[in-house]
Amino acid sequence: ADDIFDVIEEEVTEDIQKAGGVTPLEISYVAASPFMLYKKRVFWLSFLAVSGFLTSTVIAYFQNTLSAVIALAFFIPVLIGTGGNTSNQVSALVIRALATGELTLNRWFEVVKKELVVGFLLGITIGILLSLWGYWKGGPQIGPVVGVSVILIVIWSNLVGGLLPIILTRIGLDPAFISSPLLSTLLDITGLLIYFMVANVMLLK
Amino acid sequence: ADDIFDVIEEEVTEDIQKAGGVTPLEISYVAASPFMLYKKRVFWLSFLAVSGFLTSTVIAYFQNTLSAVIALAFFIPVLIGTGGNTSNQVSALVIRALATGELTLNRWFEVVKKELVVGFLLGITIGILLSLWGYWKGGPQIGPVVGVSVILIVIWSNLVGGLLPIILTRIGLDPAFISSPLLSTLLDITGLLIYFMVANVMLLK
Repeated sequence: ADDIFDVIEEEVTEDIQKAGGVTPLEISYVAASPFMLYKKRVFWLSFLAVSGFLTSTVIAYFQNTLSAVIALAFFIPVLIGTGGNTSNQVSALVIRALATGELTLNRWFEVVKKELVVGFLLGITIGILLSLWGYWKGGPQIGPVVGVSVILIVIWSNLVGGLLPIILTRIGLDPAFISSPLLSTLLDITGLLIYFMVANVMLLK
Repeated sequence: ADDIFDVIEEEVTEDIQKAGGVTPLEISYVAASPFMLYKKRVFWLSFLAVSGFLTSTVIAYFQNTLSAVIALAFFIPVLIGTGGNTSNQVSALVIRALATGELTLNRWFEVVKKELVVGFLLGITIGILLSLWGYWKGGPQIGPVVGVSVILIVIWSNLVGGLLPIILTRIGLDPAFISSPLLSTLLDITGLLIYFMVANVMLLK
């Protein structure tokens, strides 16, 4: 019985450390020197920072739009945050359904259909909330841009978060990889693209 | 033995659903209608969006700084992302050390001392990387602002991520709550405050 609990403990440890993006420590945290902890963490953290360079490339590309309407910048964190939260929610549900066996990989198209409807309903709700806030903080031009962007970002993030665990399982990877900060970066980039393209169409016509 | 595995499965399910911020489904994902899934998710997602309003309040407060130097906006997502990644890494290590019992709550001050050093080393490293990128994308004024902000944001996020699991355990809460999107929002807000205060001091003197 001890063996079983050891295996479970190791699995849980692995999952926690995967979520944090740290390779396992060979020695205990208490015994490790600050420099050892630094060496353990610096590669992954640097890699994520460098992949985050892409988000600044997107914003820099749209800097004329941003200069014309500075209030667009106010809503960057809440928009990309909403995309990430949406994706985390749906992937938790789908990973769980795959783990218990109630959802099988060949039913992926049901997930697509279901999550398109759920994403649309969630997008409308959060879109109304955030467009009212956008109207109040950014003015009558900004409110509708924020609202439309939220609807599209939520539908997109909901679909990615619902399908990715299925795709990862299909190609033999651990669906827990979905919680990776790399996915957040991908959703940040696509969310910013959606936001600034909507702004360009609606504001600069 | 079945009972034990049921308990473990329920615990794991709970953890996954906590991370996603969804209350447990009473029925299976496959059987649930889109509207049931919507009802299950909409409250928490709306709550997070509303708490994200605070990030736009911070940026709006500093809009004159931003109008003067539009390139500051380019680095908002990568800076707040780095803060979140730093905090996730250290909290994974500390939660693990608490769970195995090698770290006890009364040794919290050792964690503070250790993580101040680790945060400083990580901050310097990521700060150099991002300030070079900031220099290239935003010009000679922006590089140092990004570098100094990263150092402060990484030290701060590292301390919060290291101490919060200890504080949560001390007051009887599950340290897994650390992975909550609410913590990301808190770190987003404090990260933005650090960034714009550094920019004000270094650019507008």
